Amino acid sequence: MEKGRAEKQSKPGTNVFTPSELGLRGKKTMKIRNQMLALMKMAQIDRMEVPTDFPAGLYEELKKGGGNISLHKKSVCPERIKKSPAEVRCIRDSQRAAAASMKAAISLIASAKTGPQKQLTVGSEPLTSERVRRLIHKILIDHDCAGVETIVAGGDQGTDPHERGAGPLYGGQSIIIDIFPKSEKTGYWGDMTRTVCRGPASPELKNLYNAVKAAQAAGLRAVKPGICADEVHAAAKTVFEKRGYETKQVDGRHVGFIHGTGHGVGLDIHEFPRVSGSGEILAAGNIITVEPGLYYPGLGGVRIEDTVVVTEKGWRYLAPCEKKFELL
Amino acid sequence: MEKGRAEKQSKPGTNVFTPSELGLRGKKTMKIRNQMLALMKMAQIDRMEVPTDFPAGLYEELKKGGGNISLHKKSVCPERIKKSPAEVRCIRDSQRAAAASMKAAISLIASAKTGPQKQLTVGSEPLTSERVRRLIHKILIDHDCAGVETIVAGGDQGTDPHERGAGPLYGGQSIIIDIFPKSEKTGYWGDMTRTVCRGPASPELKNLYNAVKAAQAAGLRAVKPGICADEVHAAAKTVFEKRGYETKQVDGRHVGFIHGTGHGVGLDIHEFPRVSGSGEILAAGNIITVEPGLYYPGLGGVRIEDTVVVTEKGWRYLAPCEKKFELL
Repeated sequence: MEKGRAEKQSKPGTNVFTPSELGLRGKKTMKIRNQMLALMKMAQIDRMEVPTDFPAGLYEELKKGGGNISLHKKSVCPERIKKSPAEVRCIRDSQRAAAASMKAAISLIASAKTGPQKQLTVGSEPLTSERVRRLIHKILIDHDCAGVETIVAGGDQGTDPHERGAGPLYGGQSIIIDIFPKSEKTGYWGDMTRTVCRGPASPELKNLYNAVKAAQAAGLRAVKPGICADEVHAAAKTVFEKRGYETKQVDGRHVGFIHGTGHGVGLDIHEFPRVSGSGEILAAGNIITVEPGLYYPGLGGVRIEDTVVVTEKGWRYLAPCEKKFELL
Repeated sequence: MEKGRAEKQSKPGTNVFTPSELGLRGKKTMKIRNQMLALMKMAQIDRMEVPTDFPAGLYEELKKGGGNISLHKKSVCPERIKKSPAEVRCIRDSQRAAAASMKAAISLIASAKTGPQKQLTVGSEPLTSERVRRLIHKILIDHDCAGVETIVAGGDQGTDPHERGAGPLYGGQSIIIDIFPKSEKTGYWGDMTRTVCRGPASPELKNLYNAVKAAQAAGLRAVKPGICADEVHAAAKTVFEKRGYETKQVDGRHVGFIHGTGHGVGLDIHEFPRVSGSGEILAAGNIITVEPGLYYPGLGGVRIEDTVVVTEKGWRYLAPCEKKFELL
């Protein structure tokens, strides 16, 4: 019914077919299964691969409808791994939004006063994870981006990489801020993490931070086209090992460097290439995060993350943002 | 590893099992398929039904792993259709957030000045769909809610119910504002639509609005436990027919009352019961939207939507919000 609008709103080069152009009539028109089978017939596609998160209901319907359909374990769009210059600009814009909201969040924490038990206060109200998150999300909106599961996690909360963070923030603690905006216009993501501490940090906490900063720098130095992405992870890991930061279980909890070093970023927040244990080879045009971290309950969590594009010569940041731990 | 935290963060009454309690060891531990099959064995569940949007990859793995698994075409959690008092409060809170941001959006439009070609201006900047949407999203953030695909669509843009709206807004046009916030705390949604017009509207546009307002009132009057939800749709449709608003195709486009009257709202924005063509019977504790609309390119689009809870005696609004068309 709206072929014109569909063509206008699609990417250049997209072919739009109406149900009647696909030979569908009446009630059959509206079923996705029928549309897909008709399109395969028309375009003489004799077999179809779908990703593992394809809906099981439609998968079964297509099978029953005679479609030669199978599951594809890796990316069904391998071309997505290499970003075009236009895609790089889209991800850069989302990363700039992340950087803008990161700077504002850090400024807010830096402006906090320390009260009893080192609890942070801005104005007359306690500074909480929620309050910092609200500021970040509002700034993302001004950049036409949405932020949803943004992490602002202080102290021991930050030692669980999946904890979003809640409640009052304290001076002398590491506070992990992980922002991943999605552009409402383009659908592309950005991803950035900084860790800060209001007021002086203990020597142990400063050492922890410096180890992560050095590990990220080592990981970034390893990035170039032609190397195995695992080498980026190995470079970060070696820094931690040399400095004596063990990855192990303590009282049934994993501590140390307990996650991979990064992942691809594009139309999904996590996409190919993966930066650890995948054996994938980096190529110019890949966009990846480099985000080592250390997590020790009782001491704190630290993660530093940038999203970078792999270039012919090495890599470059998509958006710069200062790395500074102590906010004095 | 983190049974304690999982129990703390789960709903009361949830049983948490660790992989080792399920009898899993080593690498097998991490596979969701293995966890599900082990849980079925442990809990003596001999067959499993999954919804049609279940991931096809896991569906196939469970089948191959010997799981007696099948697709369920309707809701796999029929108990979700009836909300507990605590759930009603959660949805009410999201609906209050929708109402608060709706009032602010309408106030912003009401404050606009009309310039050349009736283009709306606030301050020295044009008033655009994007600008109204940003305001709405920021207010939702203050209510711990997220809004993503919020619709602010003026004039002919509003005649496509799926168009989000973009660009300048104009006086004398109908502007559809459809806000569906999701609570970041509870995960429950709200859903509300109002249609407004800055400055005087033409008699035809006013009649269009009044027809939709009357249709929504008729739909709401029909809501009570024990009736078929289709009757709510029929009540709205009858109002349009009596007033001569035809639903038909013009130049290949559907015009008139081109969608159903409503849907359930809960942990999904669209859930059971559906309010047209489903044959479902309403019961106390259902939460549904009632949202008739009329769409005629060249004249405009109008939709009015509230989310209400079905009670023993009839229904009540989850959050009140004025219905007024012309902002003079």
